[in-house]
Amino acid sequence: MPDADTVADPRPTGYPPTARTVPTRSKERASYDRELVHRLLDEAYVCHLGFVRDGAPVVLPTLYARVGERLYVHGSTGSRPLRAASVGGEDAQQDAGLPVCLTVTRIDGLVLARSAFHHSINYHSVVVHGVARQVHDEAERRAALDAIVDHVVPGRAADSRPANDKELAATAVIGLDLEEVSAKIRTGGPNDEPEDIGLPYWTGVVPVTQRYGTPVPADDLDAAVQLPGYLKGMGA
Amino acid sequence: MPDADTVADPRPTGYPPTARTVPTRSKERASYDRELVHRLLDEAYVCHLGFVRDGAPVVLPTLYARVGERLYVHGSTGSRPLRAASVGGEDAQQDAGLPVCLTVTRIDGLVLARSAFHHSINYHSVVVHGVARQVHDEAERRAALDAIVDHVVPGRAADSRPANDKELAATAVIGLDLEEVSAKIRTGGPNDEPEDIGLPYWTGVVPVTQRYGTPVPADDLDAAVQLPGYLKGMGA
Repeated sequence: MPDADTVADPRPTGYPPTARTVPTRSKERASYDRELVHRLLDEAYVCHLGFVRDGAPVVLPTLYARVGERLYVHGSTGSRPLRAASVGGEDAQQDAGLPVCLTVTRIDGLVLARSAFHHSINYHSVVVHGVARQVHDEAERRAALDAIVDHVVPGRAADSRPANDKELAATAVIGLDLEEVSAKIRTGGPNDEPEDIGLPYWTGVVPVTQRYGTPVPADDLDAAVQLPGYLKGMGA
Repeated sequence: MPDADTVADPRPTGYPPTARTVPTRSKERASYDRELVHRLLDEAYVCHLGFVRDGAPVVLPTLYARVGERLYVHGSTGSRPLRAASVGGEDAQQDAGLPVCLTVTRIDGLVLARSAFHHSINYHSVVVHGVARQVHDEAERRAALDAIVDHVVPGRAADSRPANDKELAATAVIGLDLEEVSAKIRTGGPNDEPEDIGLPYWTGVVPVTQRYGTPVPADDLDAAVQLPGYLKGMGA
């Protein structure tokens, strides 16, 4: 039995880099830090999900949520990626899963350099490679759907009518484990060439943020229903 | 010679739908309108570019610009997708191009229904399928790079140092023609079930917008350089 000091951390602080998560350039912008990845995944709620259909790439925007080391995406059982994930391709016979690339991007700023060449964008992104598989376990499906609703508006799942059996049957949930994951980050100002410093062009960063507006009630909302607390801070 | 009245419009108002641009569901949310697609592509500046590498999908965020009926993406000549597009796959011998899916998404609002099932997102997205090819013509390359800079900040290309030969040589530009294109749009309030209307849950839409902050000059900017006019409206 190994000494306690020599037992490997069962939850390493980083995702192991792989051939496809190590960039060919700007390596200093890549990160495999688990906490950073979790934070970035939890701050956004729309991802771009890529998969291969008939040999060609398809990229679709969709909601997602993270529960521990697994991401969930949901959709109609009739939608193409969900159908593909459930049977390992629409023509396959068994649940082999669907190779996917799930990418989450947050834009933080426009970087204006003195040279056109060094113009850039400040951003945080996370890229997850893996095989997405349909979730069949009912408890996990329900928890995943709640997580997706709560991911967009924390506290909302408990303050809405839960899915009934018919709705659950019409919804496919796919899971993607966080195993082959990297973040990429660009922050700071322009990286101008030293010989360009004196050029008479404005240079700096224009910050970009995503904001929530004041919630707009539906026309048929009963006037007695108050704006819930979890929405009160959003339209500030 | 055909009569002028019978000549087909050389620029039809819509992109012809194909098997992969007609959705399997929510068909009413799809649009093939050329002006709408152009407007959505021109309003955003970051896309998610999907391609296939070693049989698996890869999705990366990147800048783009539209010039007429062609989109341009640029990058280091050493970056994977650019290298792949230039030779039709890293292992191929000739410039066959790279099958890609280029997706642009704008989030407009969070849709909170009374039922968890009918929660949704208001959004506009454009999906472009096609084969991206490296641009070799120097004039087209320069125009594409200017278009990308001007796409992010209109007017900026002329107010920065143009790329020199070394920078041009280090930059790959790939073009993607707008041929197989669709937009998808969700607007409006929640689509609650009639029997849910009386439930005591707040329902409506939380608007989402992207905002620009006040431009932050670089530390080494000469104090004599004024904020250019094209940036003055951005941080309002």
